[in-house]
Amino acid sequence: MATKPIPDIVVGRLPVYLRALSAMSVEGKSVTSSQELATRLGLTSAQIRKDLSHFGEFGKQGLGYNVVFLIEQLRRILKLGQLWDVVLVGAGDLGRALANYQGFHDRGFRIRMVFDSNPSKIGQTLAGFVISDSARVVELVRREGIRVAMLAVPAAQAQPATAHLIEAGVQAILNYAPTTLIVPRGVYVQNIDPAVHLQRMTYYLEPPGPR
Amino acid sequence: MATKPIPDIVVGRLPVYLRALSAMSVEGKSVTSSQELATRLGLTSAQIRKDLSHFGEFGKQGLGYNVVFLIEQLRRILKLGQLWDVVLVGAGDLGRALANYQGFHDRGFRIRMVFDSNPSKIGQTLAGFVISDSARVVELVRREGIRVAMLAVPAAQAQPATAHLIEAGVQAILNYAPTTLIVPRGVYVQNIDPAVHLQRMTYYLEPPGPR
Repeated sequence: MATKPIPDIVVGRLPVYLRALSAMSVEGKSVTSSQELATRLGLTSAQIRKDLSHFGEFGKQGLGYNVVFLIEQLRRILKLGQLWDVVLVGAGDLGRALANYQGFHDRGFRIRMVFDSNPSKIGQTLAGFVISDSARVVELVRREGIRVAMLAVPAAQAQPATAHLIEAGVQAILNYAPTTLIVPRGVYVQNIDPAVHLQRMTYYLEPPGPR
Repeated sequence: MATKPIPDIVVGRLPVYLRALSAMSVEGKSVTSSQELATRLGLTSAQIRKDLSHFGEFGKQGLGYNVVFLIEQLRRILKLGQLWDVVLVGAGDLGRALANYQGFHDRGFRIRMVFDSNPSKIGQTLAGFVISDSARVVELVRREGIRVAMLAVPAAQAQPATAHLIEAGVQAILNYAPTTLIVPRGVYVQNIDPAVHLQRMTYYLEPPGPR
Protein backbone atom coordinates (compact mmCIF):
# COMPACT_ATOMS: atom_id res chain seq x y z
CA MET A 1 0.00 0.00 0.00
CA ALA A 2 2.80 2.39 0.89
CA THR A 3 4.73 3.78 -2.04
CA LYS A 4 8.13 3.29 -0.41
CA PRO A 5 9.22 0.97 2.38
CA ILE A 6 8.54 2.26 5.87
CA PRO A 7 11.59 2.12 8.19
CA ASP A 8 11.31 -0.88 10.50
CA ILE A 9 11.90 1.37 13.50
CA VAL A 10 8.71 3.23 12.60
CA VAL A 11 6.81 -0.03 12.18
CA GLY A 12 8.08 -1.04 15.61
CA ARG A 13 6.50 2.01 17.24
CA LEU A 14 3.03 1.48 15.75
CA PRO A 15 2.10 -1.35 18.17
CA VAL A 16 3.12 0.92 21.05
CA TYR A 17 0.89 3.69 19.73
CA LEU A 18 -1.92 1.19 19.32
CA ARG A 19 -1.46 -0.03 22.88
CA ALA A 20 -1.59 3.51 24.28
CA LEU A 21 -4.65 4.41 22.19
CA SER A 22 -6.43 1.25 23.31
CA ALA A 23 -5.76 2.22 26.93
CA MET A 24 -7.17 5.67 26.23
CA SER A 25 -10.26 4.10 24.67
CA VAL A 26 -10.78 1.92 27.75
CA GLU A 27 -10.51 5.07 29.85
CA GLY A 28 -13.34 6.55 27.79
CA LYS A 29 -11.26 9.09 25.93
CA SER A 30 -12.64 9.70 22.42
CA VAL A 31 -10.21 12.34 21.13
CA THR A 32 -6.50 12.75 21.68
CA SER A 33 -3.58 14.74 20.31
CA SER A 34 -0.06 13.90 19.24
CA GLN A 35 1.06 15.89 22.29
CA GLU A 36 -1.03 13.82 24.69
CA LEU A 37 0.16 10.58 23.12
CA ALA A 38 3.73 11.82 23.25
CA THR A 39 3.47 12.59 26.95
CA ARG A 40 2.17 9.08 27.65
CA LEU A 41 4.92 7.49 25.64
CA GLY A 42 7.91 9.63 26.53
CA LEU A 43 8.29 10.68 22.88
CA THR A 44 7.92 13.98 21.06
CA SER A 45 4.70 14.92 19.32
CA ALA A 46 6.71 15.63 16.15
CA GLN A 47 7.95 12.04 16.17
CA ILE A 48 4.44 10.68 16.44
CA ARG A 49 3.08 12.93 13.70
CA LYS A 50 5.99 12.01 11.44
CA ASP A 51 5.57 8.28 12.05
CA LEU A 52 1.85 8.40 11.32
CA SER A 53 2.34 10.57 8.23
CA HIS A 54 3.98 7.60 6.51
CA PHE A 55 0.55 5.99 6.39
CA GLY A 56 -1.83 8.83 5.69
CA GLU A 57 -3.70 11.68 7.34
CA PHE A 58 -5.39 10.51 10.52
CA GLY A 59 -6.12 13.74 12.36
CA LYS A 60 -7.38 17.20 11.66
CA GLN A 61 -5.15 20.18 12.38
CA GLY A 62 -6.25 21.60 15.72
CA LEU A 63 -8.85 18.88 16.30
CA GLY A 64 -6.55 16.01 17.16
CA TYR A 65 -7.21 12.34 16.53
CA ASN A 66 -10.41 10.39 16.93
CA VAL A 67 -9.19 7.58 19.19
CA VAL A 68 -11.40 4.81 17.81
CA PHE A 69 -10.68 5.78 14.23
CA LEU A 70 -6.93 5.84 14.79
CA ILE A 71 -7.10 2.45 16.54
CA GLU A 72 -8.94 1.04 13.52
CA GLN A 73 -6.38 2.48 11.15
CA LEU A 74 -3.43 1.12 13.11
CA ARG A 75 -5.07 -2.29 13.34
CA ARG A 76 -5.54 -2.24 9.57
CA ILE A 77 -1.93 -1.20 8.95
CA LEU A 78 -0.65 -3.92 11.29
CA LYS A 79 -2.90 -6.54 9.63
CA LEU A 80 -4.89 -7.14 12.79
CA GLY A 81 -8.32 -7.15 11.17
CA GLN A 82 -8.60 -10.90 11.72
CA LEU A 83 -7.15 -12.92 14.56
CA TRP A 84 -3.81 -14.55 13.79
CA ASP A 85 -3.50 -18.18 14.82
CA VAL A 86 -0.32 -18.83 16.79
CA VAL A 87 1.56 -22.01 17.53
CA LEU A 88 3.47 -22.25 20.82
CA VAL A 89 6.48 -24.54 20.90
CA GLY A 90 7.72 -25.28 24.41
CA ALA A 91 5.53 -26.03 27.43
CA GLY A 92 7.99 -25.27 30.23
CA ASP A 93 7.55 -22.49 32.79
CA LEU A 94 7.63 -19.78 30.16
CA GLY A 95 5.41 -21.68 27.73
CA ARG A 96 2.94 -22.13 30.56
CA ALA A 97 2.94 -18.39 31.28
CA LEU A 98 2.41 -17.63 27.59
CA ALA A 99 -0.36 -20.21 27.21
CA ASN A 100 -2.16 -18.73 30.21
CA TYR A 101 -1.64 -15.12 29.19
CA GLN A 102 -5.00 -13.45 28.64
CA GLY A 103 -3.66 -10.47 26.71
CA PHE A 104 -3.26 -11.93 23.24
CA HIS A 105 -6.82 -12.17 22.02
CA ASP A 106 -7.69 -8.48 22.29
CA ARG A 107 -4.51 -7.64 20.44
CA GLY A 108 -4.95 -9.86 17.42
CA PHE A 109 -3.65 -13.31 18.33
CA ARG A 110 -4.90 -16.62 19.60
CA ILE A 111 -2.79 -19.61 20.48
CA ARG A 112 -4.09 -22.62 18.58
CA MET A 113 -1.61 -25.40 19.30
CA VAL A 114 1.04 -26.19 21.91
CA PHE A 115 3.98 -28.50 21.30
CA ASP A 116 6.69 -30.00 23.47
CA SER A 117 9.25 -32.74 22.92
CA ASN A 118 9.20 -34.03 26.49
CA PRO A 119 7.34 -37.37 26.57
CA SER A 120 6.07 -36.61 30.08
CA LYS A 121 4.33 -33.47 28.77
CA ILE A 122 2.94 -34.77 25.49
CA GLY A 123 -0.75 -35.52 25.89
CA GLN A 124 -1.03 -33.40 29.05
CA THR A 125 -3.26 -30.35 29.08
CA LEU A 126 -1.94 -26.81 29.33
CA ALA A 127 -4.35 -23.87 29.50
CA GLY A 128 -6.93 -25.97 27.71
CA PHE A 129 -4.60 -27.24 25.00
CA VAL A 130 -3.51 -30.82 24.69
CA ILE A 131 0.26 -30.69 24.28
CA SER A 132 1.32 -32.28 20.99
CA ASP A 133 4.60 -33.97 20.18
CA SER A 134 7.10 -31.51 18.66
CA ALA A 135 7.93 -34.20 16.11
CA ARG A 136 4.53 -33.46 14.55
CA VAL A 137 5.02 -29.70 14.11
CA VAL A 138 5.46 -29.84 10.35
CA GLU A 139 2.39 -32.00 9.81
CA LEU A 140 -0.01 -30.27 12.20
CA VAL A 141 1.03 -26.64 11.79
CA ARG A 142 0.99 -26.94 8.01
CA ARG A 143 -2.43 -28.56 8.08
CA GLU A 144 -3.84 -25.64 10.08
CA GLY A 145 -2.06 -23.05 7.96
CA ILE A 146 -0.59 -21.33 11.03
CA ARG A 147 1.99 -18.70 10.14
CA VAL A 148 2.95 -17.21 13.51
CA ALA A 149 4.91 -19.01 16.24
CA MET A 150 6.19 -18.42 19.73
CA LEU A 151 9.30 -20.40 20.53
CA ALA A 152 9.96 -21.10 24.21
CA VAL A 153 12.46 -23.94 24.12
CA PRO A 154 16.05 -24.25 25.39
CA ALA A 155 18.74 -22.71 23.20
CA ALA A 156 19.99 -26.05 21.88
CA GLN A 157 16.54 -26.95 20.53
CA ALA A 158 15.76 -23.58 19.02
CA GLN A 159 17.32 -23.85 15.56
CA PRO A 160 15.98 -27.36 14.81
CA ALA A 161 12.53 -26.28 16.01
CA THR A 162 12.78 -23.21 13.80
CA ALA A 163 13.58 -25.34 10.77
CA HIS A 164 10.45 -27.38 11.39
CA LEU A 165 8.29 -24.30 11.87
CA ILE A 166 9.54 -22.79 8.63
CA GLU A 167 9.00 -26.05 6.80
CA ALA A 168 5.43 -25.96 8.11
CA GLY A 169 4.90 -22.51 6.63
CA VAL A 170 5.54 -20.24 9.63
CA GLN A 171 6.64 -16.75 8.62
CA ALA A 172 6.95 -14.95 11.96
CA ILE A 173 8.66 -16.29 15.08
CA LEU A 174 8.72 -14.69 18.50
CA ASN A 175 11.90 -16.26 19.86
CA TYR A 176 12.29 -16.65 23.63
CA ALA A 177 15.22 -19.05 23.32
CA PRO A 178 18.52 -17.40 24.29
CA THR A 179 20.16 -17.84 20.91
CA THR A 180 20.13 -16.21 17.49
CA LEU A 181 17.96 -17.98 14.93
CA ILE A 182 19.10 -18.18 11.33
CA VAL A 183 16.11 -17.86 9.01
CA PRO A 184 15.65 -17.33 5.28
CA ARG A 185 14.49 -14.06 3.76
CA GLY A 186 10.75 -13.61 4.18
CA VAL A 187 10.71 -15.07 7.70
CA TYR A 188 10.57 -12.52 10.52
CA VAL A 189 12.02 -13.01 13.98
CA GLN A 190 11.67 -10.95 17.12
CA ASN A 191 13.86 -11.89 20.06
CA ILE A 192 13.03 -11.79 23.75
CA ASP A 193 15.94 -12.66 26.01
CA PRO A 194 15.75 -11.07 29.45
CA ALA A 195 19.50 -11.32 30.05
CA VAL A 196 20.23 -9.51 26.77
CA HIS A 197 17.77 -6.78 27.72
CA LEU A 198 19.27 -6.47 31.20
CA GLN A 199 22.84 -6.33 29.88
CA ARG A 200 21.86 -3.60 27.48
CA MET A 201 20.92 -1.49 30.49
CA THR A 202 23.79 -2.29 32.85
CA TYR A 203 26.15 -0.87 30.24
CA TYR A 204 24.88 2.54 31.32
CA LEU A 205 25.15 2.00 35.09
CA GLU A 206 28.02 2.28 37.48
CA PRO A 207 29.12 -1.29 38.14
CA PRO A 208 28.34 -2.91 41.48
CA GLY A 209 31.23 -3.04 43.91
CA PRO A 210 33.14 -6.25 44.67
CA ARG A 211 31.75 -8.53 47.39
CA MET B 1 35.86 5.23 29.13
CA ALA B 2 34.79 5.90 25.57
CA THR B 3 35.57 9.38 24.28
CA LYS B 4 32.20 9.86 22.62
CA PRO B 5 28.87 8.24 23.30
CA ILE B 6 28.34 4.88 21.64
CA PRO B 7 25.06 4.60 19.72
CA ASP B 8 22.53 2.66 21.77
CA ILE B 9 21.89 0.35 18.83
CA VAL B 10 25.53 -0.72 19.03
CA VAL B 11 25.28 -1.24 22.78
CA GLY B 12 22.22 -3.36 22.14
CA ARG B 13 24.17 -5.74 19.91
CA LEU B 14 26.98 -6.36 22.39
CA PRO B 15 24.94 -8.74 24.59
CA VAL B 16 24.08 -10.72 21.46
CA TYR B 17 27.77 -10.96 20.55
CA LEU B 18 28.53 -12.01 24.10
CA ARG B 19 25.85 -14.71 23.98
CA ALA B 20 27.19 -16.12 20.72
CA LEU B 21 30.80 -16.07 21.96
CA SER B 22 29.76 -17.80 25.19
CA ALA B 23 28.09 -20.53 23.13
CA MET B 24 31.29 -20.90 21.09
CA SER B 25 33.31 -21.18 24.27
CA VAL B 26 31.02 -23.92 25.57
CA GLU B 27 31.51 -25.71 22.25
CA GLY B 28 35.28 -25.61 22.90
CA LYS B 29 36.10 -23.04 20.26
CA SER B 30 39.06 -20.88 21.30
CA VAL B 31 39.43 -18.62 18.25
CA THR B 32 36.82 -17.06 15.99
CA SER B 33 36.56 -14.44 13.26
CA SER B 34 34.19 -11.59 12.56
CA GLN B 35 33.04 -13.65 9.57
CA GLU B 36 32.19 -16.68 11.68
CA LEU B 37 30.37 -14.54 14.24
CA ALA B 38 28.53 -12.78 11.43
CA THR B 39 27.33 -16.07 9.97
CA ARG B 40 26.01 -17.18 13.35
CA LEU B 41 24.21 -13.92 13.90
CA GLY B 42 22.89 -13.17 10.44
CA LEU B 43 24.94 -9.94 10.32
CA THR B 44 27.85 -8.79 8.20
CA SER B 45 31.42 -9.13 9.39
CA ALA B 46 31.94 -5.43 8.66
CA GLN B 47 29.13 -4.58 11.07
CA ILE B 48 30.67 -6.64 13.83
CA ARG B 49 34.15 -5.19 13.30
CA LYS B 50 32.73 -1.67 13.27
CA ASP B 51 30.71 -2.23 16.43
CA LEU B 52 33.68 -3.64 18.31
CA SER B 53 36.00 -0.90 17.05
CA HIS B 54 34.09 1.60 19.20
CA PHE B 55 35.63 -0.08 22.23
CA GLY B 56 39.17 -0.93 21.15
CA GLU B 57 41.20 -3.48 19.26
CA PHE B 58 40.22 -6.99 20.22
CA GLY B 59 41.56 -9.11 17.39
CA LYS B 60 44.65 -9.38 15.25
CA GLN B 61 44.39 -8.94 11.49
CA GLY B 62 44.30 -12.40 9.98
CA LEU B 63 44.35 -14.15 13.35
CA GLY B 64 40.79 -13.47 14.45
CA TYR B 65 39.55 -13.13 17.99
CA ASN B 66 40.51 -15.09 21.06
CA VAL B 67 37.08 -16.17 22.27
CA VAL B 68 37.76 -16.08 26.00
CA PHE B 69 39.52 -12.72 25.77
CA LEU B 70 36.68 -11.17 23.77
CA ILE B 71 34.13 -12.55 26.24
CA GLU B 72 36.08 -10.94 29.08
CA GLN B 73 36.24 -7.63 27.27
CA LEU B 74 32.52 -7.61 26.49
CA ARG B 75 31.71 -8.51 30.07
CA ARG B 76 33.85 -5.61 31.23
CA ILE B 77 32.23 -3.20 28.78
CA LEU B 78 28.74 -4.32 29.84
CA LYS B 79 29.67 -4.01 33.56
CA LEU B 80 29.19 -7.71 34.19
CA GLY B 81 32.35 -8.22 36.26
CA GLN B 82 30.22 -8.64 39.39
CA LEU B 83 26.76 -10.13 39.67
CA TRP B 84 23.95 -7.59 39.64
CA ASP B 85 21.28 -8.09 42.26
CA VAL B 86 17.80 -7.98 40.77
CA VAL B 87 14.41 -7.42 42.35
CA LEU B 88 11.40 -9.13 40.78
CA VAL B 89 8.03 -7.43 41.23
CA GLY B 90 5.10 -9.67 40.35
CA ALA B 91 4.75 -13.35 41.26
CA GLY B 92 2.13 -14.42 38.72
CA ASP B 93 2.71 -16.95 35.94
CA LEU B 94 5.38 -14.84 34.30
CA GLY B 95 7.05 -13.91 37.58
CA ARG B 96 7.15 -17.60 38.42
CA ALA B 97 8.83 -18.40 35.11
CA LEU B 98 11.38 -15.63 35.67
CA ALA B 99 12.08 -16.68 39.27
CA ASN B 100 12.69 -20.25 38.12
CA TYR B 101 14.78 -19.31 35.09
CA GLN B 102 18.26 -20.74 35.45
CA GLY B 103 19.89 -18.58 32.81
CA PHE B 104 20.48 -15.36 34.73
CA HIS B 105 23.40 -16.25 36.96
CA ASP B 106 25.87 -17.12 34.20
CA ARG B 107 25.01 -13.90 32.46
CA GLY B 108 25.55 -11.49 35.29
CA PHE B 109 22.35 -11.37 37.33
CA ARG B 110 20.79 -12.93 40.39
CA ILE B 111 17.30 -12.37 41.66
CA ARG B 112 17.48 -11.32 45.31
CA MET B 113 13.91 -10.43 46.24
CA VAL B 114 10.41 -11.14 44.96
CA PHE B 115 7.41 -8.92 45.66
CA ASP B 116 3.70 -9.19 45.05
CA SER B 117 0.73 -7.21 46.25
CA ASN B 118 -1.68 -10.15 46.43
CA PRO B 119 -2.25 -11.05 50.12
CA SER B 120 -2.64 -14.71 49.15
CA LYS B 121 0.89 -14.73 47.73
CA ILE B 122 2.72 -12.65 50.33
CA GLY B 123 4.67 -14.97 52.61
CA GLN B 124 4.50 -17.87 50.16
CA THR B 125 7.67 -19.27 48.67
CA LEU B 126 8.57 -18.96 45.00
CA ALA B 127 11.74 -20.56 43.65
CA GLY B 128 13.25 -20.35 47.11
CA PHE B 129 12.25 -16.75 47.76
CA VAL B 130 9.69 -15.71 50.32
CA ILE B 131 7.37 -13.31 48.50
CA SER B 132 7.36 -9.91 50.17
CA ASP B 133 4.57 -7.36 50.23
CA SER B 134 4.91 -4.87 47.37
CA ALA B 135 4.09 -2.15 49.88
CA ARG B 136 7.59 -2.70 51.28
CA VAL B 137 9.51 -2.28 48.02
CA VAL B 138 10.93 1.13 48.90
CA GLU B 139 12.13 0.02 52.32
CA LEU B 140 13.58 -3.37 51.40
CA VAL B 141 15.02 -2.65 47.97
CA ARG B 142 16.69 0.51 49.21
CA ARG B 143 18.16 -1.32 52.20
CA GLU B 144 19.75 -3.91 49.91
CA GLY B 145 20.95 -1.31 47.42
CA ILE B 146 19.39 -3.17 44.48
CA ARG B 147 19.46 -1.15 41.27
CA VAL B 148 17.99 -3.54 38.69
CA ALA B 149 14.36 -4.67 38.56
CA MET B 150 12.11 -6.94 36.54
CA LEU B 151 8.51 -5.81 36.51
CA ALA B 152 5.92 -8.50 35.82
CA VAL B 153 2.69 -6.92 37.03
CA PRO B 154 -0.56 -6.02 35.24
CA ALA B 155 -0.51 -2.81 33.23
CA ALA B 156 -2.56 -0.86 35.76
CA GLN B 157 -0.02 -1.53 38.53
CA ALA B 158 3.07 -0.87 36.48
CA GLN B 159 3.49 2.88 36.83
CA PRO B 160 2.89 2.96 40.61
CA ALA B 161 5.27 0.02 41.05
CA THR B 162 7.82 1.85 38.93
CA ALA B 163 7.55 4.95 41.11
CA HIS B 164 8.32 2.83 44.17
CA LEU B 165 11.25 1.10 42.51
CA ILE B 166 12.76 4.40 41.46
CA GLU B 167 12.24 5.82 44.92
CA ALA B 168 14.12 2.78 46.22
CA GLY B 169 17.08 3.55 43.97
CA VAL B 170 16.42 1.27 41.00
CA GLN B 171 18.03 2.54 37.79
CA ALA B 172 17.20 -0.20 35.28
CA ILE B 173 13.80 -1.82 34.76
CA LEU B 174 12.98 -4.74 32.53
CA ASN B 175 9.29 -4.05 31.95
CA TYR B 176 7.01 -6.97 31.12
CA ALA B 177 3.84 -5.00 31.81
CA PRO B 178 1.98 -4.13 28.60
CA THR B 179 2.23 -0.38 29.06
CA THR B 180 4.78 2.38 28.59
CA LEU B 181 6.55 3.44 31.77
CA ILE B 182 7.37 7.08 32.32
CA VAL B 183 10.72 7.39 34.09
CA PRO B 184 13.10 10.24 34.84
CA ARG B 185 16.41 10.73 33.04
CA GLY B 186 19.03 8.32 34.31
CA VAL B 187 16.60 5.43 34.67
CA TYR B 188 16.71 2.85 31.87
CA VAL B 189 13.79 0.76 30.69
CA GLN B 190 13.63 -2.17 28.32
CA ASN B 191 10.21 -3.41 27.29
CA ILE B 192 9.06 -6.95 26.67
CA ASP B 193 5.50 -7.22 25.41
CA PRO B 194 4.86 -10.29 23.28
CA ALA B 195 1.84 -8.74 21.53
CA VAL B 196 3.89 -5.70 20.52
CA HIS B 197 6.61 -7.97 19.17
CA LEU B 198 4.07 -10.09 17.27
CA GLN B 199 2.32 -7.05 15.80
CA ARG B 200 5.63 -5.70 14.59
CA MET B 201 5.99 -8.86 12.50
CA THR B 202 2.44 -9.24 11.19
CA TYR B 203 2.82 -5.83 9.53
CA TYR B 204 5.03 -7.62 7.00
CA LEU B 205 2.76 -10.59 6.36
CA GLU B 206 -0.23 -11.06 4.12
CA PRO B 207 -3.26 -10.83 6.41
CA PRO B 208 -5.19 -13.97 7.28
CA GLY B 209 -8.42 -14.40 5.36
CA PRO B 210 -11.85 -13.83 6.91
CA ARG B 211 -13.43 -16.72 8.80
